[in-house]
Amino acid sequence: ISFIWRNTFAKIGEDWVFLALLGIIVAMFSYIMDYGIVMCNNARVWMYRDLTTHPFLQYLAWICLPVFLVLFSAGFVHILAPQAIGSGIPEMKTILRGVVLKEYLTFRTGVAKVVALTAALGSGMPLGKEGPLVHIASIVATLMSKMVTSFKGIYENESRNSEMLAAACAVGVSCNFGAPIGGVLFSIEVTSVYFAIRNYWRGFFSAVFGALMFRLMAYWFSNEDTLTAIFGTEYHVDFPYDPQELFIYALVGAFGGLSGAAFILFHRRYVLFMRKNKRISSFLQKNRFIYPGLMSLFITTLYFPLGLGQFLASTLSTRTQILHLFSNFTWVSDDLTVEQAEIVSHWVTESCSIFVNLSLYMLVTFFTTIWASTLPVPSGTVIPIFKMGAAFGRMIGEAMHLWFPEGVRIGGALSPILPGGYAIVGAAAFSAGLTHSISICVVISEMTGQIRHIIPVMIAVLVANAISTLLQPSLYDSIIMIKK
Amino acid sequence: ISFIWRNTFAKIGEDWVFLALLGIIVAMFSYIMDYGIVMCNNARVWMYRDLTTHPFLQYLAWICLPVFLVLFSAGFVHILAPQAIGSGIPEMKTILRGVVLKEYLTFRTGVAKVVALTAALGSGMPLGKEGPLVHIASIVATLMSKMVTSFKGIYENESRNSEMLAAACAVGVSCNFGAPIGGVLFSIEVTSVYFAIRNYWRGFFSAVFGALMFRLMAYWFSNEDTLTAIFGTEYHVDFPYDPQELFIYALVGAFGGLSGAAFILFHRRYVLFMRKNKRISSFLQKNRFIYPGLMSLFITTLYFPLGLGQFLASTLSTRTQILHLFSNFTWVSDDLTVEQAEIVSHWVTESCSIFVNLSLYMLVTFFTTIWASTLPVPSGTVIPIFKMGAAFGRMIGEAMHLWFPEGVRIGGALSPILPGGYAIVGAAAFSAGLTHSISICVVISEMTGQIRHIIPVMIAVLVANAISTLLQPSLYDSIIMIKK
Repeated sequence: ISFIWRNTFAKIGEDWVFLALLGIIVAMFSYIMDYGIVMCNNARVWMYRDLTTHPFLQYLAWICLPVFLVLFSAGFVHILAPQAIGSGIPEMKTILRGVVLKEYLTFRTGVAKVVALTAALGSGMPLGKEGPLVHIASIVATLMSKMVTSFKGIYENESRNSEMLAAACAVGVSCNFGAPIGGVLFSIEVTSVYFAIRNYWRGFFSAVFGALMFRLMAYWFSNEDTLTAIFGTEYHVDFPYDPQELFIYALVGAFGGLSGAAFILFHRRYVLFMRKNKRISSFLQKNRFIYPGLMSLFITTLYFPLGLGQFLASTLSTRTQILHLFSNFTWVSDDLTVEQAEIVSHWVTESCSIFVNLSLYMLVTFFTTIWASTLPVPSGTVIPIFKMGAAFGRMIGEAMHLWFPEGVRIGGALSPILPGGYAIVGAAAFSAGLTHSISICVVISEMTGQIRHIIPVMIAVLVANAISTLLQPSLYDSIIMIKK
Repeated sequence: ISFIWRNTFAKIGEDWVFLALLGIIVAMFSYIMDYGIVMCNNARVWMYRDLTTHPFLQYLAWICLPVFLVLFSAGFVHILAPQAIGSGIPEMKTILRGVVLKEYLTFRTGVAKVVALTAALGSGMPLGKEGPLVHIASIVATLMSKMVTSFKGIYENESRNSEMLAAACAVGVSCNFGAPIGGVLFSIEVTSVYFAIRNYWRGFFSAVFGALMFRLMAYWFSNEDTLTAIFGTEYHVDFPYDPQELFIYALVGAFGGLSGAAFILFHRRYVLFMRKNKRISSFLQKNRFIYPGLMSLFITTLYFPLGLGQFLASTLSTRTQILHLFSNFTWVSDDLTVEQAEIVSHWVTESCSIFVNLSLYMLVTFFTTIWASTLPVPSGTVIPIFKMGAAFGRMIGEAMHLWFPEGVRIGGALSPILPGGYAIVGAAAFSAGLTHSISICVVISEMTGQIRHIIPVMIAVLVANAISTLLQPSLYDSIIMIKK
C-alpha cells in the first residue's frame, strides 16, 4: 500500500488525502456504531413490550439483554485490550502532552473499543460515545500513518504525528456530535494547553469530510437528515428571548456549574472509595464479572418501565429523549395537538406532573451515570449529563411559563417563554460544567441547527464554567488525577 | 479611580469586571459609530435625491459630502495621530508578537481613529470597520488597564497585558460583526501564532458582554434586532442543499481563493508602485490632500447613480446591499411579490440583466476597494470583499436556478436551488480568501443567524483558504510586509 500511496496521493499532497480519508473512515465507524446501538435499543424495548404481558416475565425480558451486553462488552475488552476501557479524552490529553501510553493506539485496542462500545451503549446504560470516538479516531489515524510510512521508516517526524492526533481528536468529536466546527474547538479545548494556529485547518479539513460522509450515509441508508442537525429544532420567533430572561439563564448556568462540579466530585469520591476499600477491590479483581453484572442489573432495574422507569421515559432512546426535551412547544399548555400530547405522555404519569418526573429523571440520571461510568467498558459521560441539563432547562422553562403565562413584556410586545430554549441552555450549561469547555456553545448550535439562542447559551456556559472551575478540575483532569 | 477600584471590584475579581466593562464600552463605540455612519450615508443619498433634479447639480450634491468627509478624515488623522491610518489588525499582530509600536495605543490615536473612521465610512467609500474596531478595542483596553494600575506601578505584569490585548482584539471583531463566538475565533486566527487555551475564556467573556450590550442598545434606541443576526436570513427548507451542489460550492470557494489572492497581489503591487515612483510619492508627500481628494472624487464619481452607479445599487447602504444579496427568493423567478420586485429593481437596469449588473458590481468593488484602502484614513477591507463574494454567490445561484429551474433531484424529491445560500457561501469564501481564516464560517453563521449551510460554507472556505494560501500571504501579512 505504501508504494502505491507514494506514487499517487503523496504527490498531490499526502496531508490532504490523509486527512480526508481519516474523516471519512471515522464517520463510517460512527455511523455503523450508531446503527448497531439503535438496533440493540430497539430489540430491548421490543422484548419488553411485545414478547409477553406478564409483569415478571416482562422484567426478565427487560433486564436480560442489557446485562448480557454489558457482560459481553466487559469480557471482550478484558480479553482483547483493557486499554479500551473508559473514555479516551483524558488519555489523549496525556499523549498530546508527550507521554507515551503503551498499547494505547493499536489495532487490537481499536477493535476492542469499537465492538465493546457498541455493546455497552446498546445496553441502554446512561453513557455517551464522544470520548471513545476520540480514542477510535486517534487509533485510525495512527494505523493509517503507520501504513503510509511503514516503508519509509516509522515515525519520520514526531511533531507531524502529534498534529495528526490532534486532527483525529477533532474528527472524533465532530463525528459524534455531528458538529464539524464545534467538534474541532471542543477537542482543542479539552486536549490541548497551547495550540498552534498553523494546525487549525487540519482539524477542520478532516472534520468537514467526516461530517459530509456522515450526512451522505444518512442520505443513502436511512433518509434521515442527520448532519444538518442531529437534534434539529426550529423556533421561529423574532425575539427568541427577552433581556430580563437572561438572569434566569445565568441561574441555569450557575446550577449547571454546580452540578457539573458535584458530578466530578462524587465520581472521584466513588472511584477512590471503591479502590481504597481493599476487601471489595480485591474481591472484584478476582471476580471480574460480578461488578459489571450486578451494576448493570441494578441500573437496568431502576429504569424498568413498570417500576421507577415510568417516571424516566425509559422506553425512549437517548436521541428521542433529547428531541422531546428540546421540542418547540409548552408542555404545560392546555391545548396540545395529538403529536404534542403523545410527546408529553412520556413525561407525565397518572399520579405526577412533569415537574416530579423531570426531577426524578435528573436525579436518577445523575447517579446512574456515575455508576455506569465506573463499569469496565468503553464509555463517555457527556451525553447523559447533556440529557440531564436538557431536563433541568425544560423544567425551568415550563415553570417560567407557569409564572408568566402571557410571556415577558418587552417594549410594547409580549414575548412568550420558549421552554425549548431553556432546555438547550440547560443542556449546554451542564455539559460545560462537566467538561470546562466554552466551545460547547458552538457544538450545541450545530447540533440543534439553530444559532438564535447563542447569547443565552454563552452566558450560561460562561457562568457554568466559572463556577465549576472554581470548585473542581474538569472531569478529564479529574480522571487523569485518579489514574495517576 | 484606582483607589475606588481597588476597594470594590478588585476584591470580587478584577479580571471579570474589567473584561465585562471592556466589552460594554467597545460595543457602545461600535454602536455610536454605526449610527454616525448611517446618518452620513442617509444625508448623502438625500442630498442627491431630494435637493435638486438637474443632473449636473445632482452630481455635485452626490460628490460634495463624500469628498469633504474623506478630506476631513484624512486631515484629522494627519494632525492628531497618523498611527490611526489603516486597518489595525496587522499592527496588533505585530504587537502581540512582542514588538513595541510607539504611540500606537494612546488616547490621542483612539480619538483620531474613532472620529476619522466614522467620517471615512460615512463617505460611502467601499471600506469596512473590522480592523479599526480591533485597534479601538485594544486602545480602550490599554487605557482602562492604565487607569486601574496607574497607582500600583504601570505594567505590573507584562504577560497579563498581552492577555488583555488578545481579549480586546476578540471584542473588536465581535462587536463589528455582531458575532461573539466567530469574532473570538477570527481574532485568534488573524493575530496569534500560538494560542494558550487558558486565555480562551477571556475573549468569550468580554465578547459576550459586548454582544449583549450591542443587542440591548439596538432594543433601546432603534427597535432593531441587530444582535441575533445582523444580516438575518430565514431559509426554511428541509434540504438546504444537495450533495451534488457541493461541487459548485467548492468552485465558488476556488474562485473566492483566487480573487482573494488577486486582491492581495494587486493591492501590494499598487502600494509598492506608488511608493517606488519617486516623483509621485514626493509630490503627494508635500500635498497631502491631493491624493485623498482626487481618489475619493474618482470613486464617488464611479458610483454616481445616474452614471455607472445605476449598475451598482449605489443608493443602497452596504447593509441593505448585503441583505438584498442574501434574500431568500430567486431573483430571476417570474412571479415576484411587490417587495421582492422592489429589491430586484435595484439590481437590474433597463438595458441589462442582473448578471451584467452583478458582474460590474464585483469588478468595480474589487478595484475601488483597493484604491480606497490606500487612502490615508482608518479603514478595513473585509466587508467590501464580503459584499463582492455575496454578489458572486448570488450570480452563481441565479445561474444555477436558470440551468436547473426545477431544482436538483435528490432521492425521490426535487430540492430547489436556493440562490441566497450561494450568496452566503460566496461571501464566506471571498472573505476567507482575503484573510486566510477558517473561522469566517462561524462568523457568517452568527451574522446570518443560521447554521444550516455550514457544510457548504466550510467546504468553500477550506478550498478558498487552500488556494489563497498557496498563492499569496494573507492580506494582513502582506500589509506587514509592505510596512517593513
